[in-house]
Amino acid sequence: MTEKKIVLTGDRPTGPLHLGHYIGSLKNRLELQETATQFVMIADVQALTDNYEQPEKVRSHVLDVALDYLSIGIDPLKSTIFIQSLIPELAELTIYYLNLVTWNRLKHNPTVKQEIVQKGYGESVPAGFMVYPVSQAADITAFKANLVPVGEDQLPMIEQTNEIVRSFNRIYKKEVLVEAKALIPKVGRLCGTDGKAKMSKSLNNCIYLSDSPDAVAKKVKGMYTDPGHLRVEDPGKVEGNPVFDYLTAFDSDGEGLEAMKAHYARGGLGDSIVKKRLLDVLQAFLDPVRKKREELAKDPKAVMKILLEGSEKAALRAAQTLKEVREAMHLNYS
Amino acid sequence: MTEKKIVLTGDRPTGPLHLGHYIGSLKNRLELQETATQFVMIADVQALTDNYEQPEKVRSHVLDVALDYLSIGIDPLKSTIFIQSLIPELAELTIYYLNLVTWNRLKHNPTVKQEIVQKGYGESVPAGFMVYPVSQAADITAFKANLVPVGEDQLPMIEQTNEIVRSFNRIYKKEVLVEAKALIPKVGRLCGTDGKAKMSKSLNNCIYLSDSPDAVAKKVKGMYTDPGHLRVEDPGKVEGNPVFDYLTAFDSDGEGLEAMKAHYARGGLGDSIVKKRLLDVLQAFLDPVRKKREELAKDPKAVMKILLEGSEKAALRAAQTLKEVREAMHLNYS
Repeated sequence: MTEKKIVLTGDRPTGPLHLGHYIGSLKNRLELQETATQFVMIADVQALTDNYEQPEKVRSHVLDVALDYLSIGIDPLKSTIFIQSLIPELAELTIYYLNLVTWNRLKHNPTVKQEIVQKGYGESVPAGFMVYPVSQAADITAFKANLVPVGEDQLPMIEQTNEIVRSFNRIYKKEVLVEAKALIPKVGRLCGTDGKAKMSKSLNNCIYLSDSPDAVAKKVKGMYTDPGHLRVEDPGKVEGNPVFDYLTAFDSDGEGLEAMKAHYARGGLGDSIVKKRLLDVLQAFLDPVRKKREELAKDPKAVMKILLEGSEKAALRAAQTLKEVREAMHLNYS
Repeated sequence: MTEKKIVLTGDRPTGPLHLGHYIGSLKNRLELQETATQFVMIADVQALTDNYEQPEKVRSHVLDVALDYLSIGIDPLKSTIFIQSLIPELAELTIYYLNLVTWNRLKHNPTVKQEIVQKGYGESVPAGFMVYPVSQAADITAFKANLVPVGEDQLPMIEQTNEIVRSFNRIYKKEVLVEAKALIPKVGRLCGTDGKAKMSKSLNNCIYLSDSPDAVAKKVKGMYTDPGHLRVEDPGKVEGNPVFDYLTAFDSDGEGLEAMKAHYARGGLGDSIVKKRLLDVLQAFLDPVRKKREELAKDPKAVMKILLEGSEKAALRAAQTLKEVREAMHLNYS
């Protein structure tokens, strides 16, 4: 007997999604929507915690992210795609959960601590940003999600959620909330086109799902390879070579790829040939995605309708959880 | 031309209301409901920030506080009495406002700092408690209240609210929110029956609006007076003498009171006579309050109905503000 998997996942709408997102999470979601009840959240409220001065940016990326989702194959008939701010129950749950977490605990959340340093906030960090782990706990528990796909760096978030779950059930003497397990994707991160550990908009080293064929061609051509591989006849390094990393992630011809790697390693295979192969593989992967996106982009109202319907469906679930939460807290007035 | 006064006021439902509440705020509300649009909030959500482990206590006092309000003369036809947790819009506003306040700013709120010391929280202060000034800003601004009756110690709360108002209107480029003015009651605080500065449940020095005649008689009899006034013929101190303070607050016979004060000061007037006068005055004040309370308590469902109807009315106002807030934040999806 296995329990039904309920998955919560999503993205902050702060920029277009790239191949790193695909390998790190979207691919996983395409599989999960076949077997689990999957909620995919466009986290506009969370995006505002560190973009509160750019609400237009957040707003415009909501539709972009939705287009990315739908064109990559997240299917609204299989996954519930919703907009966070359209589920007011999440705000209410957050407010109640804030009582169950100490100030000190928030201050020592390793993920948030690191982000504060990265963003250079110091003591001027917005309170909304500091408490976003509690808001995440609301997102996860509202849907009674028991499986949350996250990167390793996000594990403290799941821990914080489960602490809240346990505190709530203990203090309010009822097993209302459900603990979540982290699902860490087996495939590692996709590095940037410059060989840096991670694709990141600010590093300008991303290939986006929405990039034109020309843009992809240009980016692949400029990709970092083995800097020691100066002449075609030189032996080249396969490991740590982004072009081969990408091929490993996207090339379905495993045998051909192995042969190519061996050839490159012993020398005699030029970067341009390997890049040509990668470009073919990527264009073959992205072509249908682009076509679908183009189709969808013609009718943004229809896309918004999908989001509104998903949000309605998600709100029903969250409302049920909130009802149970309020009852346990003796907040059921009538 | 004077702008229409919109008042937000209320209490945390953590105990029965006493004469100190009457002098400090309820009396004021009876006047305000004649001239202003007054919202009176039973702040269950705020009460939970430091009583989250005792939800039953908070819940039971919601009805008690409502009975106190209604029996003292807060009129649901003139004031909108509502339950905070029934206005989910307040949670949403709080979440958005949290982005506009720095962590550091919250940490240095003088009122909260003092309360943290009083409650002995230290670093283990619940995050919900730390952010309650932001939640108060949501309460005030949701109704576009421009007048908030507070004690001097609560002034930093109004300051914090107005900072949020200015930040919001500036960042989101629209005059959505309204600054509030503090209304500090002219009449000072009523001291405790023991002469301590303040009536406080934990000091056991309160006369409650719901006290029985016997309980009031016993409390008045045991009241602190001038400790130097040992024999009837001795001159007694009027100033700092709680019995005279209470008479000043409640005795409508000003002339008689002045004569009594003079007599007491020159000697020859016994404490028991002054206390007898106070008891008569208080019973005359409390008798109709008790009668009304008794009547109302017979039908708690009718009282709850008043609260539910008030909450519905309050929710409509808050929803309108939230709509404007969301529009300014580009969170209006359709």
